Amino acid sequence: MKIILDAMGGDNAPLAVVQGALEAHAQCGADIVLVGREEDIRACLIGPLPEGVEIVNATEVVEMCDDPATAFKRKKDSSLTVGLTMLKNGEGDAFVSAGSTGALLAGATLLVKRIRGVRRAAMGPVLPTATGRALLCDCGANADCTPEYLLQFAYLGNFYAQRLMGVEKPRVGLLNIGAEPSKGDTLRHETYALLEEAGREGRLNFIGNIEANTALLGGADVIVADGYSGNILLKTVEGAAKLLLGEMKKAFLSSTKSKLGALLVKDSLGDVKKLLDPSEVGGTPFLGISKPVLKAHGSSDARAIRNAVFRAVEYAQSGIIADVEAHIDVMKVEKNG
Amino acid sequence: MKIILDAMGGDNAPLAVVQGALEAHAQCGADIVLVGREEDIRACLIGPLPEGVEIVNATEVVEMCDDPATAFKRKKDSSLTVGLTMLKNGEGDAFVSAGSTGALLAGATLLVKRIRGVRRAAMGPVLPTATGRALLCDCGANADCTPEYLLQFAYLGNFYAQRLMGVEKPRVGLLNIGAEPSKGDTLRHETYALLEEAGREGRLNFIGNIEANTALLGGADVIVADGYSGNILLKTVEGAAKLLLGEMKKAFLSSTKSKLGALLVKDSLGDVKKLLDPSEVGGTPFLGISKPVLKAHGSSDARAIRNAVFRAVEYAQSGIIADVEAHIDVMKVEKNG
Repeated sequence: MKIILDAMGGDNAPLAVVQGALEAHAQCGADIVLVGREEDIRACLIGPLPEGVEIVNATEVVEMCDDPATAFKRKKDSSLTVGLTMLKNGEGDAFVSAGSTGALLAGATLLVKRIRGVRRAAMGPVLPTATGRALLCDCGANADCTPEYLLQFAYLGNFYAQRLMGVEKPRVGLLNIGAEPSKGDTLRHETYALLEEAGREGRLNFIGNIEANTALLGGADVIVADGYSGNILLKTVEGAAKLLLGEMKKAFLSSTKSKLGALLVKDSLGDVKKLLDPSEVGGTPFLGISKPVLKAHGSSDARAIRNAVFRAVEYAQSGIIADVEAHIDVMKVEKNG
Repeated sequence: MKIILDAMGGDNAPLAVVQGALEAHAQCGADIVLVGREEDIRACLIGPLPEGVEIVNATEVVEMCDDPATAFKRKKDSSLTVGLTMLKNGEGDAFVSAGSTGALLAGATLLVKRIRGVRRAAMGPVLPTATGRALLCDCGANADCTPEYLLQFAYLGNFYAQRLMGVEKPRVGLLNIGAEPSKGDTLRHETYALLEEAGREGRLNFIGNIEANTALLGGADVIVADGYSGNILLKTVEGAAKLLLGEMKKAFLSSTKSKLGALLVKDSLGDVKKLLDPSEVGGTPFLGISKPVLKAHGSSDARAIRNAVFRAVEYAQSGIIADVEAHIDVMKVEKNG
């Protein structure tokens, strides 16, 4: 298993990427390819390069200000383009980057390519819920969606939950603003009909519409959304958590009694904060791309990068891409309608 | 000031409505009209009806299972239809119901009518943020929206924030999945252009796109959204808060030390819970209706109903409806484009 890393991507690159990759290598034994400016990467090393870790020089860097759609093409010697090309050519099993999401998605789509028949790649982050975890698909890769995209996101999420979350018959819910089939906008109505048919034919365990609050309490294993509203959900969780934890902090500091109490609950509350810390997961795959490409958070530290490498190894070993290839015929609307 | 209440609406009707209305009457002096089955309402009273409180008999009840679009028409002697008709005829200054949102919206739109020129009425709940409050408009009344609807929601929210939140130049943000104008779907792109123009002409203080996390941290006074995604935001806040408070409870119970700590912080944490308790606000107006119609939460208790009456009084006195009438020309796309 060989993981290719964009050593220049993210706010803390290359140091956090190099450190995280070395940690992952030491802990899980995966071979590592660090792609980027060799000099800058070497400056992050304390000792010699461990066996199984190599550096591939790439002189350019895709910046956040570059046009995402064309960056990978214009900067042919960037860590992003060189790394994705290696993945495409079979010189590694997965590619991880903490750089620009848009540039990574464009590069993955146009260089590595989507699985044949998949209309759009989607981002599939795993959310914490009151009873476990749920996969949200899409969460921002596709703002404008068709019912067919959403049907495909449902399948992508379904295979992910089966292969990577250990759920045999994932409960697939359509993110909506009420439980009844009549709820929501035109996109939801048309998607509901497609998902219902897939459910009737035993291809998906479609449980109907799911509201955002029910989803967070554990009502579904897969939450199907267009990229716009999926992203609203994701960012609202982030904002609500910050708001609540901030207000709690104020409450804790409001009296001597509460300050003392805060000291006593501090350790236990660590787990609650961990639940919402994206570094714990580390990386989110682009579902539907023909080879594993994972996005790490732009602010990733070494621990987040290490965890992203673990996710890349799991994803590459999971068999999800083969699942999608094997079922692509039923994932299209022409065949389904 | 006379507030008409749907005594039969909500999970805890008529008892919670009657008790809440009497409390509000005692505390703010507003006259109250309780509309519903007189016998059922009288059964909730302990003493005689106070001066300034009257009962208007209506024999039917709009149930949650009734078709929202036609319920007010088919059940002509329902508390909903009788109450809204009284409002329309000037026999009261505002109408409050904890019954079916859809039936209330349909009744308000078709009986009381929208302000002339307003394309769609919107629900405008006030959200807590890290620095104060923000109005979200729309949050579920309109799943399918046009750019013109969203432009109008921006104005409705703007006048609300000026009149009822005391903000002189409300910061109006378009809910989106990134800050740049190019972010989001087609609806967002087209709406951005309209809002930018309104900003350029000094009619709105348009601050651009706002992401959900930034919005909850206090980045805007008015959050403009279609009803679908606004509802996703609202329900996600609810779900995330439940998830976090539930996990906190587990953490508090995890050790003897943390249990003791929890006892000491309990009082201070009450304020955090209050922040997210919809009963604290009580009622949400349908912005754009020509007279004040407010929706209380279906699970309202007496305190929530009391607070909803207070909101109705404030809304009726605010002058917001006159503001919309005075600015309706610039709220239309024909005049704006």
